[in-house]
Amino acid sequence: MDLTDALRRAERLDADDPLAHVRGRFSLPDGLVYLDGNSLGALSRPVPPAVAGVVEEQWGGDLVSSWNTHDWWDAPRRVGARIARLVGAADDEVVVADSTSVNLFKALVAAARLRPGRATLVLEAGNFPADLYIADSVADLLGLAVRRVDPLALTAALDDDVAVVSLSHVDYRTGRAYDMDGVTRDVHGAGALVVWDLSHSAGAMPVELGVCDVDFAVGCGYKYLNGGPGAPAYVMVARRHHGTMRSPLPGWTGHARPFAMEATYEPAAGIDAMRCGTTPMLSLLALESALSAFDGLTMAEVRDRSLSLTTLFLDLADEHLVARGFGIATPRASDERGSQVSLTHAGAYGVVQALAARGVVGDFRDPDIVRLGFAPLYVRHVDVVTAVHHLVEVVEAGEERDARWTVRTTVT
Amino acid sequence: MDLTDALRRAERLDADDPLAHVRGRFSLPDGLVYLDGNSLGALSRPVPPAVAGVVEEQWGGDLVSSWNTHDWWDAPRRVGARIARLVGAADDEVVVADSTSVNLFKALVAAARLRPGRATLVLEAGNFPADLYIADSVADLLGLAVRRVDPLALTAALDDDVAVVSLSHVDYRTGRAYDMDGVTRDVHGAGALVVWDLSHSAGAMPVELGVCDVDFAVGCGYKYLNGGPGAPAYVMVARRHHGTMRSPLPGWTGHARPFAMEATYEPAAGIDAMRCGTTPMLSLLALESALSAFDGLTMAEVRDRSLSLTTLFLDLADEHLVARGFGIATPRASDERGSQVSLTHAGAYGVVQALAARGVVGDFRDPDIVRLGFAPLYVRHVDVVTAVHHLVEVVEAGEERDARWTVRTTVT
Repeated sequence: MDLTDALRRAERLDADDPLAHVRGRFSLPDGLVYLDGNSLGALSRPVPPAVAGVVEEQWGGDLVSSWNTHDWWDAPRRVGARIARLVGAADDEVVVADSTSVNLFKALVAAARLRPGRATLVLEAGNFPADLYIADSVADLLGLAVRRVDPLALTAALDDDVAVVSLSHVDYRTGRAYDMDGVTRDVHGAGALVVWDLSHSAGAMPVELGVCDVDFAVGCGYKYLNGGPGAPAYVMVARRHHGTMRSPLPGWTGHARPFAMEATYEPAAGIDAMRCGTTPMLSLLALESALSAFDGLTMAEVRDRSLSLTTLFLDLADEHLVARGFGIATPRASDERGSQVSLTHAGAYGVVQALAARGVVGDFRDPDIVRLGFAPLYVRHVDVVTAVHHLVEVVEAGEERDARWTVRTTVT
Repeated sequence: MDLTDALRRAERLDADDPLAHVRGRFSLPDGLVYLDGNSLGALSRPVPPAVAGVVEEQWGGDLVSSWNTHDWWDAPRRVGARIARLVGAADDEVVVADSTSVNLFKALVAAARLRPGRATLVLEAGNFPADLYIADSVADLLGLAVRRVDPLALTAALDDDVAVVSLSHVDYRTGRAYDMDGVTRDVHGAGALVVWDLSHSAGAMPVELGVCDVDFAVGCGYKYLNGGPGAPAYVMVARRHHGTMRSPLPGWTGHARPFAMEATYEPAAGIDAMRCGTTPMLSLLALESALSAFDGLTMAEVRDRSLSLTTLFLDLADEHLVARGFGIATPRASDERGSQVSLTHAGAYGVVQALAARGVVGDFRDPDIVRLGFAPLYVRHVDVVTAVHHLVEVVEAGEERDARWTVRTTVT
């Protein structure tokens, strides 16, 4: 199918798409094909007035009384409950707090403390580097050994010395999705606990933390949840660990009686024990507003649209890109991928820059990956075809060799 | 002096006050006497348009490219440098990150690791409870003993087993200011390192971290710095510890080569090693905008105004409040207090509520403290007299006994 025919087909797919209207919930620059929502999600329309109201009326007008009158105090739990519904957890199992890395630190320490007598952390070797750094630090502080393993060979690495397994649901580079249910079952079978990082899956595909019996999970607020740059992250702890889990970051907001200002820490009974300091309220309430983009949608519908987009891209990539020096790093089986497709190319660095100059925003991952995220709430099928069209033109013209990559990019 | 005369005197003081114009930089509700800027600083006028620009033009319009084009990446350092100038540190010694509690955790672990072979943490017994909780957690993780001491008796608690001393510059309850220079010298004399919490001093009085040779400091963005609810906090590390300090929260943003996505952590050479995850950008850039309220002011001028306000309040309290059941918990000597005055009263809880109903916002601290913060950038001398007037009327009418305190309040 040539790209003109593909464009016609994409237009039909968009016309028939039951979620096509959701794009209207976002404010996107005209003419831009934005395939980097897995790095920074787009701005949704209710956010600017919501943030302005928080700044001018709540902070400016009601000042410190807003903690009560606008219920800032409960916002981390309220927003946590909203996220819980996207990841298959109970409302009281998720709280918004800190960054993903800090939450991972809390979750790993808390999990390891629930398995005293076991002295090994198992890490997915290809996990996001910050997750590895944090886990190494946890191991150092708690005196644990670390095993870094290929997650497809995880089972062989499990034995009765393993306290905790830490991995990502979807790989940030390749877009590979791991079998949350199977891995969690294997980990539990070995008597260990699991901590999943949902940064590249939550909001783009169904996540079933409850069904899969997951112990701990953490995730990012600014990718597919569209919470804005550096939006606060979240942490999920299964209810069975509430009361016994012990965070290494016991702040006053996680105390059983936070307003009593007691000299000794006593953790809150529930998920609040994972709170530490005061959450950045402008960023938190922007995230809350952004989550309204999911109103009325099921994650099954979102997943259908995501797979329709990535399948179209993979089909066109096979036909138009593979012969032009691109490889495909993302698994083909739909149950083995998230909502991104990663291409490999010897000139990946320049390809991404040349694409951006043409109004198609993706990102580069060292050493050779062109990462394209198909955020299913606002990317259209016609955007998929447009992206392929520009990828073809870039390499046909050798633009990736001319391009100079002078800017840094943000990551994860 | 009766309160009518006092009001006339206050009007003259305001008319002659070289910083009186600074109040115009803030957006304050008409008629409100806001004495809780030490809990949540007021909104300054440039913040709403700045935040709207970040949301709509930067995030909404330029999306992920804003990390470069709007230099989001360097914002934690850029805002850190701005704060450094308020606390007497060098520009490259401060970075904005995380919450005060998380920064304290990083600083305490890093400091303790710089004193291997020493196994005791010394804590100010009356420090803000979260600081105590965090220090206890650090001691637990590192296998250290904890000594909680009265900071006025600190010297006696120092010996060659002490690795780190953790205390606050100004006490959150009483407003007592400790002698940063003398304490730091004593701590260094014992071979230990010091971590100061500046939450209740920075932005309200001169802080001389460099002159006092302080090792580590942390502080809050949302009190006297007026950064907005839950604004990100900051951490200062003296340059002599750069390169050797080791944070327990090694995130990718603190890596020596953050964009190389290496599998092993190598800390950045400078203060960036104290960065962990991505900073909440809306809250961070609101803080940056808010700091412009300090433009053109010296901290000596700010301190003069602060002392003029608190001295007036203390004089009026002696004359009008002490005979009416109030005590004064704040030291009288001007070099022993920050920018708040804490009264004690058997009905403190109700006094604060009755005051609020009269448009004077202070806060209550368990068990008997009425805490009044005189944020020197926007509180006027006439506000001081108005507050005393209402305090007199409240207790004369016994309103504190009628009042029902049904709401929670935020703290620190």
